Amino acid sequence: MSAIFEILDKDAGGRIGKLRTPHGVVETPTVMPVINPNIQLISPKEMRSFGAEILITNSYIIYRKEELRTVALEKGLHELLGFDGPIMTDSGSFQLSVYGSVEVTNEEILGFQEKIGSDIIVPLDIPTPPDVHFRRAEEELATTAERLEAARKFIQSKQLLAGPVQGSTYPELREKAASHLKDLNFEVYPLGAVVPLMESYRYAELVDVIAASKKGLSPTSPVHLFGAGHPMMFALAVALGCDLFDSAAYALYAKDGRYITSNGTYHLEKLNYLPCSCPVCSRYTAEELRKAKNKEELLGRHNLYATFAEIRLIKQSIKDGKLLELVEQRCRAHPKLLDGLKRLYTHSAWLEQFDPATKGTYFYCGPESASRPEVLRFGKRLERFSIEGSAIIRTSPVKGEKDYDRILTFKAPFGTFPAEMEEVYPFNAEVPKFPDYEALSTSLSNTIKLMDLNPGAEFTFICEKEFQHPLIEEIGKKAKLVYREAWKKE
Amino acid sequence: MSAIFEILDKDAGGRIGKLRTPHGVVETPTVMPVINPNIQLISPKEMRSFGAEILITNSYIIYRKEELRTVALEKGLHELLGFDGPIMTDSGSFQLSVYGSVEVTNEEILGFQEKIGSDIIVPLDIPTPPDVHFRRAEEELATTAERLEAARKFIQSKQLLAGPVQGSTYPELREKAASHLKDLNFEVYPLGAVVPLMESYRYAELVDVIAASKKGLSPTSPVHLFGAGHPMMFALAVALGCDLFDSAAYALYAKDGRYITSNGTYHLEKLNYLPCSCPVCSRYTAEELRKAKNKEELLGRHNLYATFAEIRLIKQSIKDGKLLELVEQRCRAHPKLLDGLKRLYTHSAWLEQFDPATKGTYFYCGPESASRPEVLRFGKRLERFSIEGSAIIRTSPVKGEKDYDRILTFKAPFGTFPAEMEEVYPFNAEVPKFPDYEALSTSLSNTIKLMDLNPGAEFTFICEKEFQHPLIEEIGKKAKLVYREAWKKE
Repeated sequence: MSAIFEILDKDAGGRIGKLRTPHGVVETPTVMPVINPNIQLISPKEMRSFGAEILITNSYIIYRKEELRTVALEKGLHELLGFDGPIMTDSGSFQLSVYGSVEVTNEEILGFQEKIGSDIIVPLDIPTPPDVHFRRAEEELATTAERLEAARKFIQSKQLLAGPVQGSTYPELREKAASHLKDLNFEVYPLGAVVPLMESYRYAELVDVIAASKKGLSPTSPVHLFGAGHPMMFALAVALGCDLFDSAAYALYAKDGRYITSNGTYHLEKLNYLPCSCPVCSRYTAEELRKAKNKEELLGRHNLYATFAEIRLIKQSIKDGKLLELVEQRCRAHPKLLDGLKRLYTHSAWLEQFDPATKGTYFYCGPESASRPEVLRFGKRLERFSIEGSAIIRTSPVKGEKDYDRILTFKAPFGTFPAEMEEVYPFNAEVPKFPDYEALSTSLSNTIKLMDLNPGAEFTFICEKEFQHPLIEEIGKKAKLVYREAWKKE
Repeated sequence: MSAIFEILDKDAGGRIGKLRTPHGVVETPTVMPVINPNIQLISPKEMRSFGAEILITNSYIIYRKEELRTVALEKGLHELLGFDGPIMTDSGSFQLSVYGSVEVTNEEILGFQEKIGSDIIVPLDIPTPPDVHFRRAEEELATTAERLEAARKFIQSKQLLAGPVQGSTYPELREKAASHLKDLNFEVYPLGAVVPLMESYRYAELVDVIAASKKGLSPTSPVHLFGAGHPMMFALAVALGCDLFDSAAYALYAKDGRYITSNGTYHLEKLNYLPCSCPVCSRYTAEELRKAKNKEELLGRHNLYATFAEIRLIKQSIKDGKLLELVEQRCRAHPKLLDGLKRLYTHSAWLEQFDPATKGTYFYCGPESASRPEVLRFGKRLERFSIEGSAIIRTSPVKGEKDYDRILTFKAPFGTFPAEMEEVYPFNAEVPKFPDYEALSTSLSNTIKLMDLNPGAEFTFICEKEFQHPLIEEIGKKAKLVYREAWKKE
């Protein structure tokens, strides 16, 4: 197993990994451009120039169309598409979800994918949509489980086999399904039937679905967020531990005149300017692009450039330990993404176990930053600071502080820690001049906790007049509370 | 005057304008790439391909160097640089600020700029740095004023004359200087000596300097934030009413191996990936770029692509009425920019007069969004809602609400308004599911104000359990307060 997916770098739940397939190694996180075997807006072999390392296509479409099927069986999938790198194939589950039935069995489509040389084979699972009755979700999950067990027995080649996690919008079902599949040792775990959540901007629920599935899986397994192709939510999904995405969006959106950016979608018809630096947008004006004969192709190219630039930014952010800063910025693009961000941090206790102990300087980006894993971790380890005697707590040096036994620094959103640690991660954090309410909530709570842990010490708290928070009163009960202005006069 | 600068679109303090110069019309906001007359990383004539519409160069350097001076005087500035579009010239003020003196008088350098055919002429003002004594700032400002008055008398051609606003970090001096210059009718107003503020990330003070200067100037005059070339802070500066920037950064940063993005700067040496979609970054890997023979030039090109893409995004955001959403997102790039954002909204009452009455859907991006001009405006006009009889306030429909005389909607960060206006701007706002503390502060205050304005009405407030805020108690004193859960059971 470990030979197939290797994790090289980590930040929050995100990671940079190497996925080994029969046709080569793929660096994750990445997006697989969806190739329609019938119509190609941009040829598969050109995909590498945008940054694609792996493609995905639909084996059911190939299976159903005589001329495609014959070529695929005779010359192989890679020759059919004209791409010699890794190719994943879908099974017809999507068609099943749209039309209610497909004209192929699980074994038939598995065998077909194996024969044509797919690098990642997907069984014919049941994609249960969001919001169905629990009973239906459970029943369909049982069918999916049977088919996946059969698939695991059926596929024994070097080709990778995907084990899709279903369970609708029931986190408990997703987690249960995931832990069951974990024991069957699939090589890749797609999270299925999440497209309707993304289409209706239900990012908070999407976060719960991903987190629940991840909790059931081994953290060392690669996870594919099936159907996710909009770069706007890649950072959020990567932070939760998704490694693979697939984009039909680049082409479908281009067909509709939709222009993808990492902050959302524009309609080309409504653009006065092309707000992007890609080769297409640097060369054409919005007006020229609208009138171009190959408008759809150019738009598809722009969409791919924008998509892969976001992947590179995400990978760089993981390297720099800045993934959550990126997530917090991206999630400002839409209030529903902000809901997703807030939901992400309800899982901070779980995320914390993956988050590196030391990383790039913490940047405070907003109230949600107060709930990041490293802030939580700080609050859980306050007992390591043992304080005795007289202790002064202040945001920055004050007169006469050397008369105290201990000098402590207060810094939101963390709390109170020994002044000598100011330059140490995470206390070297870059924070705004005056903390938000939420940052004060965390840091004042942690300060109260520290005081409670050290009942023998005598605390003096130098308060800033900008600290407007009900917990200040609480601090006043446990410490001598002096406002900075009054202190100066003492 | 109005013929020289025409404002076409507005959003917050930002605008899209047309600046007419002897060598053509420039659409603002825009950046003027700085051309060093001695060394050119990228040739002036190529600048158009990146999106540049106007260049800036230093007339003092040309004046001081025999061979440049001769060509400029004989063939003109435009022939010297090989660019037939608008060119602004600096006067030597920068050299004055660095070396303490220059070997030219105000009249000499003005006359020289006029003769060589500069499109925007800059007098030899005194760039007073931040943090000097008030006395010095005042004295230098007096000298600057004299020189600008002389310049205004001296330059009477069709060439545009710039009147730089100085005053160090004293907002009152900046505003005073600006109102004085307003009466002298310059065509362009640079805000001078702000580079040290930007270099040390003092964005909050920069905001105050810009706002103070703008308050003194006519809102119809074009403003140039002299020395600002990093795209990270363009959106913030544009929202305050800056129209022109100049970038030496694209070349200076390239020389140092620094890679510009709209979210900050990377060192090429430390990049594993190129997190951008521009023609350079789509073609090269980080490793290849580091090893390229023309690394500096390629990096300069990337820096220009990134810079002008941000300008296009800003212009599109103004068109869409989404400039403040962009500002709020960009200001997450660094906590000091977040300080700048918070400071921006301390000027909301002033910004509100420029902000269109109706624009694109309001997106809530964080606590600062609660202080946007449109939220402030709503709070100032509560008297237009006259409420009588029984009134129910709720976030979404509840049972039995039709028994009330008036049905009102509560939506943070705004407050309470008639339910029939839910789909009207700004109440059609996209907001997170649960409001932040700051959003509750604004909306609950406005609700209390509405109740006070309508003492005859009987209010019932259906409260959500997620609303944790001290003002809820206040609401309880003025209205019947019922939690949604309890209401269901009634």
